[in-house]
Amino acid sequence: MEKNIENSLLLDFYGELLTDKVRYATEMYYNDDLSLSEIADDMGITRQGVRDLIKRAEGNLQTFEEKLGLHKRFVETQEGLSKLKKSLEETKCVLDKEDKSSVIAKVDEMTLVVNELLNQE
Amino acid sequence: MEKNIENSLLLDFYGELLTDKVRYATEMYYNDDLSLSEIADDMGITRQGVRDLIKRAEGNLQTFEEKLGLHKRFVETQEGLSKLKKSLEETKCVLDKEDKSSVIAKVDEMTLVVNELLNQE
Repeated sequence: MEKNIENSLLLDFYGELLTDKVRYATEMYYNDDLSLSEIADDMGITRQGVRDLIKRAEGNLQTFEEKLGLHKRFVETQEGLSKLKKSLEETKCVLDKEDKSSVIAKVDEMTLVVNELLNQE
Repeated sequence: MEKNIENSLLLDFYGELLTDKVRYATEMYYNDDLSLSEIADDMGITRQGVRDLIKRAEGNLQTFEEKLGLHKRFVETQEGLSKLKKSLEETKCVLDKEDKSSVIAKVDEMTLVVNELLNQE
């Protein structure tokens, strides 16, 4: 069974929509890095049972993203904001040299907004 | 039956996760502004049947948002970006007056990123 990083990201994003049992098994597999056998022992089911739960989770997570595309949009927003943050820092460097205090205050204000957006949960 | 704007926004956001029949009835009600009786006629079911489908949709949409909170985050991002866009425009006004062409180019670049983020689908 192949463990891919995209499923792990989708699990963080849409995991709450999975049923408790499916999510429990899948989080142990993706987040806690336990083996199928270890999860099977913990849950008192067969190794194949665990594999089925995880496959079901992966299918559901992929479907959520195909239908909503919200994770893709989230990643694009984060990338755009990171680019913006870098531009703001560069702009500030240029301005610092010429002592334009009011413009610097404006840039600081924008940087704050960008940081808030980048760190929101 | 009360029609609220939040349900309408959540329908646009999470509608794809509803079953076809539930979504069909709910979109006619919220997006096309048809009455329960008109939808009942269209679907060949009772008025109460339509009401039940829409209630189910509203419950599901609220649950999606309670669990994921992605619409709230989306709205916050849009608000932050709008604020940022306004700050960039103000910054540009200040800079224009002093003819700082390299800084203006930087601000233009950031404005482009912000606009892309605001308009993404």
